[in-house]
Amino acid sequence: MSDTRTNAGVDNVSKFRKMFTWEKPGERVITILTAGNLATTQAVISLLDERLKAPEDRNPSIMAATTMFQVANLVGDTLKEVIRTQGSDGPESESPFGATMIVGGQIAGIGPRLFLVYPEGNFIEASEETPFFQAGETKYGRPILLRAYNPKMTFEEAIKLLYVSFDSTLKANLSVGMPLDLQTIETDACKVAAQRRVEENDPYFTTISSRWGDALKLAFNSLPDYEF
Amino acid sequence: MSDTRTNAGVDNVSKFRKMFTWEKPGERVITILTAGNLATTQAVISLLDERLKAPEDRNPSIMAATTMFQVANLVGDTLKEVIRTQGSDGPESESPFGATMIVGGQIAGIGPRLFLVYPEGNFIEASEETPFFQAGETKYGRPILLRAYNPKMTFEEAIKLLYVSFDSTLKANLSVGMPLDLQTIETDACKVAAQRRVEENDPYFTTISSRWGDALKLAFNSLPDYEF
Repeated sequence: MSDTRTNAGVDNVSKFRKMFTWEKPGERVITILTAGNLATTQAVISLLDERLKAPEDRNPSIMAATTMFQVANLVGDTLKEVIRTQGSDGPESESPFGATMIVGGQIAGIGPRLFLVYPEGNFIEASEETPFFQAGETKYGRPILLRAYNPKMTFEEAIKLLYVSFDSTLKANLSVGMPLDLQTIETDACKVAAQRRVEENDPYFTTISSRWGDALKLAFNSLPDYEF
Repeated sequence: MSDTRTNAGVDNVSKFRKMFTWEKPGERVITILTAGNLATTQAVISLLDERLKAPEDRNPSIMAATTMFQVANLVGDTLKEVIRTQGSDGPESESPFGATMIVGGQIAGIGPRLFLVYPEGNFIEASEETPFFQAGETKYGRPILLRAYNPKMTFEEAIKLLYVSFDSTLKANLSVGMPLDLQTIETDACKVAAQRRVEENDPYFTTISSRWGDALKLAFNSLPDYEF
């Protein structure tokens, strides 16, 4: 799940998609979620796209890479290169050019994999101990993920948890805003299973947001009060 | 409420008090909570203390200031001066010398007041619309404050809320750690009403922490699951 708000100061807020998918159903599906400087992330996505059209380039394309590890490597190299280029020989920017990307997907024959790519170009992979990644404005939504996530959850429950976590962040921080993009990938089918844009008036999101506030207050009231 | 953990990198973690009180019961009580660079905050507290012993100094002491606004002004000036001095003509530090302080209390004859003092030396005051302040690692604990705080709460409920908010932060971030310091001030008595150190094995904290986890899971399960 990703939001769509970007800003260059509070008086310059816009909406941009932060979720990008490359798909050849049955053979591979790759999704990238971006956080950080918009010029950087757009340049990375454009470069990855351009390489698809010029496959004889010295760099392979993400649609030609043979493993998800190679895909993450490609994304990392491209990200590092873009940041290096933008950072050198130009006027200094007030804000850094950094960006972080979550890269997930599957190439047929190997299990699905999930990576977090740093601005330095290196990356880490999700594991049993750390099965999920966040990027960008991560802190507000993290406590509920830590408390409620359970590897035995169904997808329906996991998506509910995403909604609750994003709702906590939306309530607390103006730099994150609706609409949200939601996507699930079907293991071994190597294709997008469900994809939708969650708008401000989305009935399920509205239900979760208002009922979560009430449920939290009930949960809080169920605890014993402090005694002096 | 304040925690006691400070760090200069994860391999250099120590315990330091971040809550400081000056009191003349019936006449005034002033409490400062500190966040940020420890050398800076210790220097500010020492300077404020030293001025009490040398009252003929050109700067008044916080025990001689006639309003809490003047106290906040004094703290802000001292903080700004310390940061300016530490930041100039010395080797550059990797971490900035910044610090933020919450200043609360009452001087007899005027209502209790609460200020948030910035590293720049200026400050804002709590109001009906923004009745509480956080400083330091604020984000993890903020969503529950926004959802559960209610100006009609009793002190017993408000302290429970502090415990829950700190617990969310403690679970998510190593830079905040037990023990915690808790203090309440009694309006118009101009003195500390209750003060205690909450250790790791504190029975009430343990109860809140474990029952909050369960209550959150129950609250989460009470929401309808997502439907594809």
